[in-house]
Amino acid sequence: MKARVEESKPNYNMNEWEITEDSFSPERNFHNETIFSVGNGFIGIRGTFEEGLEDEAGLGAEGTFLNGVYEEGIIRYGEIAYGFPEKNQTMINVANGKKIILYLEDEIFNMQTGQLLKYKRSINMKEGVLKRSLIWQSPKGKQIKLETERIACFKRRNLAVVKYKVTPINFDGNIKIVSEIDGNVKHSLNEKDPRIGSGLEKGAFYTVNALIEADTAVLLQKTKRTEITVACVARGIIKTKCGYKTKDYVKEDGVALEYHVEGQKGKAIDYIKYVVYDASYDTQDIILDHALDALKDAVGCGYNSLKEEQYDFLFDYWEKSDIEIKGDIPLQQAIRFNLFHLLQSVGRDGKTNICAKGLTGEGYEGHYFWDTEMFVIPAFLYSNPDISRKLLEYRYSTLDKARARAREMSHKKGALFPWRTINGEECSGYFPAGTAQYHINADIAHAIKSYMEVTQDYEFLLLYGAEILFETARLWSDLGFYNSEKGGKFCINCVTGPDEYTAIVNNNFYTNLMAKENLEYAYNTAVWMKENHKSYYEKLVSRIGLELEEIALWEIDACNMYVPYSEKLGIHSQDDSFLDKEVWDFENIPKENYPLLLHYHPLVIYRHQVCKQADVVLALFLLGYKFSQEQKRRDYDYYEKVTTHDSSLSACIFSIVANDIGYHEKGYDYFIKTARMDLDDYQGNTHHGVHTANMAGSWMGIVNGFAGMRVYDNVLSFQPYIHPSWEEYSFKITYRGSVIKLTINRKGTAYQLIKGKELKITHFGKSFLLKDKHIME
Amino acid sequence: MKARVEESKPNYNMNEWEITEDSFSPERNFHNETIFSVGNGFIGIRGTFEEGLEDEAGLGAEGTFLNGVYEEGIIRYGEIAYGFPEKNQTMINVANGKKIILYLEDEIFNMQTGQLLKYKRSINMKEGVLKRSLIWQSPKGKQIKLETERIACFKRRNLAVVKYKVTPINFDGNIKIVSEIDGNVKHSLNEKDPRIGSGLEKGAFYTVNALIEADTAVLLQKTKRTEITVACVARGIIKTKCGYKTKDYVKEDGVALEYHVEGQKGKAIDYIKYVVYDASYDTQDIILDHALDALKDAVGCGYNSLKEEQYDFLFDYWEKSDIEIKGDIPLQQAIRFNLFHLLQSVGRDGKTNICAKGLTGEGYEGHYFWDTEMFVIPAFLYSNPDISRKLLEYRYSTLDKARARAREMSHKKGALFPWRTINGEECSGYFPAGTAQYHINADIAHAIKSYMEVTQDYEFLLLYGAEILFETARLWSDLGFYNSEKGGKFCINCVTGPDEYTAIVNNNFYTNLMAKENLEYAYNTAVWMKENHKSYYEKLVSRIGLELEEIALWEIDACNMYVPYSEKLGIHSQDDSFLDKEVWDFENIPKENYPLLLHYHPLVIYRHQVCKQADVVLALFLLGYKFSQEQKRRDYDYYEKVTTHDSSLSACIFSIVANDIGYHEKGYDYFIKTARMDLDDYQGNTHHGVHTANMAGSWMGIVNGFAGMRVYDNVLSFQPYIHPSWEEYSFKITYRGSVIKLTINRKGTAYQLIKGKELKITHFGKSFLLKDKHIME
Repeated sequence: MKARVEESKPNYNMNEWEITEDSFSPERNFHNETIFSVGNGFIGIRGTFEEGLEDEAGLGAEGTFLNGVYEEGIIRYGEIAYGFPEKNQTMINVANGKKIILYLEDEIFNMQTGQLLKYKRSINMKEGVLKRSLIWQSPKGKQIKLETERIACFKRRNLAVVKYKVTPINFDGNIKIVSEIDGNVKHSLNEKDPRIGSGLEKGAFYTVNALIEADTAVLLQKTKRTEITVACVARGIIKTKCGYKTKDYVKEDGVALEYHVEGQKGKAIDYIKYVVYDASYDTQDIILDHALDALKDAVGCGYNSLKEEQYDFLFDYWEKSDIEIKGDIPLQQAIRFNLFHLLQSVGRDGKTNICAKGLTGEGYEGHYFWDTEMFVIPAFLYSNPDISRKLLEYRYSTLDKARARAREMSHKKGALFPWRTINGEECSGYFPAGTAQYHINADIAHAIKSYMEVTQDYEFLLLYGAEILFETARLWSDLGFYNSEKGGKFCINCVTGPDEYTAIVNNNFYTNLMAKENLEYAYNTAVWMKENHKSYYEKLVSRIGLELEEIALWEIDACNMYVPYSEKLGIHSQDDSFLDKEVWDFENIPKENYPLLLHYHPLVIYRHQVCKQADVVLALFLLGYKFSQEQKRRDYDYYEKVTTHDSSLSACIFSIVANDIGYHEKGYDYFIKTARMDLDDYQGNTHHGVHTANMAGSWMGIVNGFAGMRVYDNVLSFQPYIHPSWEEYSFKITYRGSVIKLTINRKGTAYQLIKGKELKITHFGKSFLLKDKHIME
Repeated sequence: MKARVEESKPNYNMNEWEITEDSFSPERNFHNETIFSVGNGFIGIRGTFEEGLEDEAGLGAEGTFLNGVYEEGIIRYGEIAYGFPEKNQTMINVANGKKIILYLEDEIFNMQTGQLLKYKRSINMKEGVLKRSLIWQSPKGKQIKLETERIACFKRRNLAVVKYKVTPINFDGNIKIVSEIDGNVKHSLNEKDPRIGSGLEKGAFYTVNALIEADTAVLLQKTKRTEITVACVARGIIKTKCGYKTKDYVKEDGVALEYHVEGQKGKAIDYIKYVVYDASYDTQDIILDHALDALKDAVGCGYNSLKEEQYDFLFDYWEKSDIEIKGDIPLQQAIRFNLFHLLQSVGRDGKTNICAKGLTGEGYEGHYFWDTEMFVIPAFLYSNPDISRKLLEYRYSTLDKARARAREMSHKKGALFPWRTINGEECSGYFPAGTAQYHINADIAHAIKSYMEVTQDYEFLLLYGAEILFETARLWSDLGFYNSEKGGKFCINCVTGPDEYTAIVNNNFYTNLMAKENLEYAYNTAVWMKENHKSYYEKLVSRIGLELEEIALWEIDACNMYVPYSEKLGIHSQDDSFLDKEVWDFENIPKENYPLLLHYHPLVIYRHQVCKQADVVLALFLLGYKFSQEQKRRDYDYYEKVTTHDSSLSACIFSIVANDIGYHEKGYDYFIKTARMDLDDYQGNTHHGVHTANMAGSWMGIVNGFAGMRVYDNVLSFQPYIHPSWEEYSFKITYRGSVIKLTINRKGTAYQLIKGKELKITHFGKSFLLKDKHIME
């Protein structure tokens, strides 16, 4: 299956705003299902066809996902131990509401048979409408023209719409359109998964109700373990000058509406299908009422107006978020593709988050990771800070579960956020590269700090942020200890840093520094709250039983944080023992043995100096102000040599730091891999879903990398660089209510204040006040 | 279930040669099923009753095991990774051939109902016969006397015999004896096990054939995955003066013979049941023929002769193996109990080994561990060296699998033995405390070295030992590397030492030293072979493709082995980072939180200085000649404070080293826990099976601990100590064909040459030649 994808690399027309394929190829189909996914942050529909594929195995995987809708399974272990998560969470495939089967007399429409005389599929990122247009000749010679459109409506959380237009070209005859809600869905990627025993393979749902009433098809299903009710309701509107009859019936796990049309040569049959999804723990009546209301609204609005809404929404989005690159169309296309998919994937309701693979596939089981705080939040923060806030609100909503997890992990105080989760409970099944990644706590704190620096949204800090900061700081304070063997410094042992090729180590450089930031920021926030918002402070302190001494200790712990450094090599050591290990034999290991995790036992990998991804180098970016350029260069030089970039989160960070230290060609090379990772399938697994963190990383690659943007201590600074292959690039930054636009070309950098009050900006270390427009050479 | 066991501690009459219980208590039953197990190294039958228990759940677990008979299951992982073992192996419960149900008219005999007017169960360790005698009154008032005996015949690998004698006391009437082979057995301990999905819960067997022919009951079953055929054949001989009729029939998964006896008051019904088990990968005809032959022989021999055989076998065993302790009956009883169970458990055919729980329970799934080489082999070596050789032959038989595993673990050369196994393939499902314990390789090499020192069995070395030594040495050479960060020394990273509360560390003290010994001994063996057995040497070297440079490197690697030491503390560090960790808070952790593994996540445990068992201290024993007494004391003092002894392998080693360094009271206290661990259920889990390694450890505790025996460099040395509470203790040692007896009392130590040629002996550093008898004060 993977082989097929690799045999035939994706190949799209280069276009600044559009992804287009000009021919249908079963070999490229699996990958394209991901690429042509549509989503609105709640609903995600893979780019599978309305009619499906006849023999899907290996060619693709149906997928309709609802953010936050998951089923539980039992995690089984070779040997179980105390504190291992017992339940898995898996984002599940819900009812296929877009399904439409087409019959021409006795023949079924299927692109794999007959002849495809014309074919085009495209998605325009300004429109947000997936379009397919084709001419097909059936095995018996009947020709039709088929035009379909599909929208996951950004402005209407629950709505997807399909437009399905059939025109017989060379025949009159019976045309049957069978429009279904198909609840009999399965999970394709789990087949070889150790969790196959959890019961998911038998279907996560049971059907509560399936009926058709007043032209509206209703399927109500409920997950077996998590007991989430999912409603899928649909109505079809047919427009044709031909005569037709309808028929409807309930199937096993589904409902179907049939249209029997007396098709006539040249006369179009135009069918619009409105599909509404809703899901929650509410009673089925509430959910159904809500879904039916949304359906009624949508039908009332009509297809063309919905398309306009979609365009308007995206117009606003691009207005704030677009990155323009002149002179490099593949890159321009890729960066917009990434920003578009980020928007399609991200939960914007404060109750859901963003899956590692968005809503585009079953990879990583739909889990939320640190990807959110370290990649996605920064990418939205400077254009759509409201989305970043919603993502942080989600984390806040899981704080009680993080507290409970900390207790389970024997921490007397504080909260420990999960490495992998949907509902807020830890569900990573391999703790050395899961629970041991305690840095998730500091990553969340870092995102709050960045969010506050950019927005000064004190309401958020008082209501949510402070409590997270205090509970994460408490955890670090409980976890670390003053170690006489390390000069009495505050040490953090037995954790795993971002680099998953090195596990369970003492004093991971990244973790210690980020924990230090977390402790400091929690301390500063507590002091600030006490002074400026005494009643909030007192309520919070009393609610979580926080002692004054604890707060004082955060500062002391932070001050005394141990930072591993090798005097001999003049570099930071990734952890206490990293440099004690044998360097991986890069020279003699054949290329096909990468990614290493698929070819070597963890012990073999852990035994060597070899990194899956940026670890020290990530700290050099996030906390770059702490290090001299020379130090960064030495660290970068060392760690680049031992990094495989087997993780999709690595290239973008290396690109940013390379640009920072003047290695611009390296910066460019890493960036290309980042930007087109999914379009060109660099990781070889985009068919499992897009890589959302990396997509966000491509925003960071431009803004933090090439333009060198940093925000630290109330200063917004840049050191822009333009690559010789580009003519110009530009983007907007929203910062504390002001919007500025940067345009960088070979003449220099133009800073323009688009909106809001004047802003102090630093350009290569020189500060100026941006009032209107300012050009720096 | 466990609670019940703890509520009512076991309580046996104190007797030097016998374990006796005087009353039947359901609460003590589960534990007693283990204690009263009978076995002969192939067959193991738990001390369950012929009639079973009415409601077994929580009260006990049927168990009939055959050494080496296992079923495979799939190991499921939370997240799978390359090189994780895919198949589990589980020693399985085979058909219950001892089953006998007794009816008195319409009432069924069951000790849980009616009244038990008299009850006694005992096993005499000179006889090797489990006996039960009771008087029972049925709910309706019928009284019987029941006397049963059970033997697992040491001299006949395949044979078990049950004697069943019923005498009606106060009634005449129908007595029905139903004698079964019950193949419908299940696995009790796996119910809460993560491997429940493997299919074992549905029964590991299917029945190939069940029939009764010419008074012989036959049940042939086959395991579903491993396809091992197990035959159980049985014949019953009834002797009674009452009239009777018989009936036989085949049941689902079993066969039954019924005896309907016209019972008469005072007239005994005497029933002998011969049960033969055989199992192998041979065809069922071969297996069945073999089993029927063995059955015929047994019946021909008759019960009384079999009892005599059993006595004779044990007479020889005790003659060589007994340890006599005068003045301490509980200890005397315990040490004999342990030596008896070791014999009952140990495979003596070179194809099987000894399970961690012997053949007495399902704990640890019947896996073989390092327990064999580090505990059981030493305990047999000085009395029954032939058994030690057989255990090493088993390891040799798995060498090809160890080679394959080494390749899987990316080692270009050498062999890596499995941490847990039955068939020679690794089946540990948690690698940080499984595969990471590379020291298993050196443990096996150490056992070979000890075996050779004691036996000078060069045939073994040439045929088996050398090849194991070479392949294990190769692995160390491939695993380690010369580390410039450690003064250019040879370092071994990312392994786990014996202490399972500290995992995946660099330069584990024990591992490095034992690897050094392995390398040195392999080198010396190669040099010796080349000089003295050139043709063997050349054949072996050519067969395994061994290069001259490899051999030379072993010596160099060994010479350069890094040994972690803390100058500051003047102690050996358990590994590079052990002393960098926070010391476990022994003071404030409540007693009920031990064993820690049941109450803390591995990360919490790994993060602290806390040991499950002897690690550095084990090296102090095995390689004691390398360290001064002062050094040993400093190390012991430090590690004793941070050791929980949550492992059953710990106390015996601490006892030995405590005695070595003059801490005799500590030595005594640890020894008591060792000696009576299973009888007094110190670990709280003897109901899952006996702790064979610890049982062997009690032999070591006397001989290596109190008597201070060491064998090093062709010298047998002692430094005996007698505890004030004992009058005298004595034991025999077989060494290079000679047998000597040591008798230690307050006057001194008497050395007596019992057999063989004169022997040089060192007593507290003074050497003398033992020719006849020699008394040292």
